[in-house]
Amino acid sequence: MHEPYIAPRTPMRFDRAVRVVSAAAVGGKKEKEGPLGDFLDIYCEDEKLSEKTWENAESEMCRIALNTALSKASLTEKSVDYLIAGDLMNQCTGAAYGLLDFDIPYFGLYGACSTFAEAIILGSVLVSSGQANCVAVVVSSHFCTAERQYRFPLEYGSFSESTAQNTVTGAGAILLSKADFPSNVSTNVFVTEALPGIVFDRGIKDAANMGAAMSTAAADTILRYFETSGRDFRQFDRILTGDLGKEGHSIVSEMLEQKLSGISSRYTDCGILIYDTEKQDVGCGGSGCGCSALVTCGYLMHELACGKMNKCLLAGTGAMMSPQSLLQGMSIPAVAHLIAFERV
Amino acid sequence: MHEPYIAPRTPMRFDRAVRVVSAAAVGGKKEKEGPLGDFLDIYCEDEKLSEKTWENAESEMCRIALNTALSKASLTEKSVDYLIAGDLMNQCTGAAYGLLDFDIPYFGLYGACSTFAEAIILGSVLVSSGQANCVAVVVSSHFCTAERQYRFPLEYGSFSESTAQNTVTGAGAILLSKADFPSNVSTNVFVTEALPGIVFDRGIKDAANMGAAMSTAAADTILRYFETSGRDFRQFDRILTGDLGKEGHSIVSEMLEQKLSGISSRYTDCGILIYDTEKQDVGCGGSGCGCSALVTCGYLMHELACGKMNKCLLAGTGAMMSPQSLLQGMSIPAVAHLIAFERV
Repeated sequence: MHEPYIAPRTPMRFDRAVRVVSAAAVGGKKEKEGPLGDFLDIYCEDEKLSEKTWENAESEMCRIALNTALSKASLTEKSVDYLIAGDLMNQCTGAAYGLLDFDIPYFGLYGACSTFAEAIILGSVLVSSGQANCVAVVVSSHFCTAERQYRFPLEYGSFSESTAQNTVTGAGAILLSKADFPSNVSTNVFVTEALPGIVFDRGIKDAANMGAAMSTAAADTILRYFETSGRDFRQFDRILTGDLGKEGHSIVSEMLEQKLSGISSRYTDCGILIYDTEKQDVGCGGSGCGCSALVTCGYLMHELACGKMNKCLLAGTGAMMSPQSLLQGMSIPAVAHLIAFERV
Repeated sequence: MHEPYIAPRTPMRFDRAVRVVSAAAVGGKKEKEGPLGDFLDIYCEDEKLSEKTWENAESEMCRIALNTALSKASLTEKSVDYLIAGDLMNQCTGAAYGLLDFDIPYFGLYGACSTFAEAIILGSVLVSSGQANCVAVVVSSHFCTAERQYRFPLEYGSFSESTAQNTVTGAGAILLSKADFPSNVSTNVFVTEALPGIVFDRGIKDAANMGAAMSTAAADTILRYFETSGRDFRQFDRILTGDLGKEGHSIVSEMLEQKLSGISSRYTDCGILIYDTEKQDVGCGGSGCGCSALVTCGYLMHELACGKMNKCLLAGTGAMMSPQSLLQGMSIPAVAHLIAFERV
């Protein structure tokens, strides 16, 4: 009889095998007016982009984001081995239609708002294993498509709860390559580690309080990372969650502080950074796949590339319910996937 | 200036690095009554499984499928590094809720009905790269949840078109491990190659004729495999598409024959195999994530493990539209992901 194998639940390590070639952030009006607006590569003043539907506009943002990331690196689709993409729309049509123009083999993901981090993990595995030399990650969300799908069409004029968040309008794209990829332009930023998350259900049924629903998953992944990686949180300039907003951020801060005293001074949330939650009408902050994607592809990559930061952690958070599952009385399961970015 | 890298679009090769430990197929009444019914591990006579909703029943089938695959290999969740899962429901709630009980890090995918093949590719990359020793793939579909979501709730009593297919009710699970994984039970079947698909849009807008919409993607992936792998189609006992049904199968047969004369005698479709399309009321055949999963986890794995087959190809097909995108006048993009199974 064999002793059964016990999975260690420790981080994947990529060391210096997975380089960020380039990244692009495409955002709408509220995102441009927010504190990180200057880090957007493309700003869509018309959030419908002259398309007939909001859904087509979101698809168009995906296309623009990938084209911008490619052109920043002087590359074309021919240099990309695989596309990894997803969004919040039913059947992930934002990415599927938006990336149709690109003749690149396509992996579709659904991790709710954690899709960006999930895609970077799987992209990093493809690159570090040698199965790919260059992978493109693209995710998106759009306030108007998300309102129609998860709450009410905008035309109904409904009000939001105080704990509700504002779905980010935008798409982020990031190109990952092996370290010695032949590119004329590239960053000195690497994806060095990853810790995929376990799905938790805290029993919360309030879709207007997703930050709270996702907090257990976020805390579990971050704490597991520090328990198993041998890293000290003081090594990181910033530790970010994806889109918990103020409510979820304050819950996770407390949960982390109980185990790692002092960590909360380095811990923030993309949903808080992307908007001015005092002056902009965004409830508890930003949410959606676009939230962590825009903060990472715009702000974080800039700070890492220019040396203002050296090492940071992103725990992409996702709430895995559907409007139908909530109507059927189910609670909100959540997941958080962690990645470490490091300037080398 | 660097010469830009040109992605080769060739198959990934895993050789003997990715072993199928075990597989499990859970199906409903029509699947049990079909020609492959004897290969089901679990048969759910009550397709609602005493749950309150069809959606919960589908989730329960995911749970049962994974538990069955684990127990066939005398393993528990502790031995599984990662779960890779998906289904057709909005926000992939079949898998997310169904697999909540398992404390295993979770990657959610959305590749429509190609999700099973897509998950096996990414699982094989995780295992062959050494990032995982054991990965579980679980996918599902359910006639009643799919009718509600894509067409009409059953209670409306609507009729189907002649080219329509019947969504398979069932879940399939497969455990993949490195070659020398310490298991007391294992098969001698390996995932040896994979070719991820490119998304195509043939301009078809008829959701009752998905076989035709998916045919270009299926033919592209299969032909690209034979053009770039150096393999001869005569090496394979069977070449299967996932769920094209009779209509799509006949289109793809013609497309393949034009390039590879004689291939059609080896080419069939899981959607045709799973039902008796003459005697059962299933239109053009089966469809859904469960279709390729049940045929593979039940029938194919049995034939490969016992030596009735030695080598076969599965091109998992997926239609990437949503009901909303069709209402908005969009056509149906499709993808096909290919995997090679080999008895060693």
